[in-house]
Amino acid sequence: MTTQRTVPADADDPTLEADVFARNCPSRLVLQNVVSRWGVLALVALREGPYRFSALRRRVDGVSERMLSQTLQALERDGMVNREVQETIPPRVEYTLTELGADVAAHLEALIQVVETNLPRVHAAQAAYHRD
Amino acid sequence: MTTQRTVPADADDPTLEADVFARNCPSRLVLQNVVSRWGVLALVALREGPYRFSALRRRVDGVSERMLSQTLQALERDGMVNREVQETIPPRVEYTLTELGADVAAHLEALIQVVETNLPRVHAAQAAYHRD
Repeated sequence: MTTQRTVPADADDPTLEADVFARNCPSRLVLQNVVSRWGVLALVALREGPYRFSALRRRVDGVSERMLSQTLQALERDGMVNREVQETIPPRVEYTLTELGADVAAHLEALIQVVETNLPRVHAAQAAYHRD
Repeated sequence: MTTQRTVPADADDPTLEADVFARNCPSRLVLQNVVSRWGVLALVALREGPYRFSALRRRVDGVSERMLSQTLQALERDGMVNREVQETIPPRVEYTLTELGADVAAHLEALIQVVETNLPRVHAAQAAYHRD
């Protein structure tokens, strides 16, 4: 009897390079977690410093408790975010970026800068698109 | 009678800066289009050069015709992608990145590199998460 593997056979085969363009490559799921609707905003918010859940929820305007909780869980599982429980009374739970999460978040922030800065160009494109 | 505006009142007010953290800022929707499941992959694929629809669909492994079509339409509308119809027989439709799309895609590619390169670290984090 062999034990069941919980990851695809190629997931940790060092001879196979990760490729998000390949349908079954596990890197695609990791990418999807960091670029998810709330994943992007949570990661970039955490560049500002540690956040407690409720403060992070206020920062990521519009997210529900349930969605933020799911988002943070996926990011913690993938090693992007640390969840630290401080032994105060009552206990205090803080979220911080891991080294990898910080690396990813820096790229996301650069992307956001491009989008925010170019919003007038996007609006011009949208106006032209609807005119045609 | 005033004419109806089709964009929010603050969308092109130059005194208001775009902020993806604000629930109603139109930049949030633009961000979501470029980081959507297939948006990321389509933009990064187009860094390789012009693509026809069917070839792009093969490159973005796993996308349906419908989803790729919707994705490209959103990206074209936001000024990220050009759709060019060449007057051959039969007509040939090609997609290319705009200057803005190329800027965005470069950041997405850098992000993908970080994710792909660090996949072993992610797998280690996942294993530790499920052990706890």
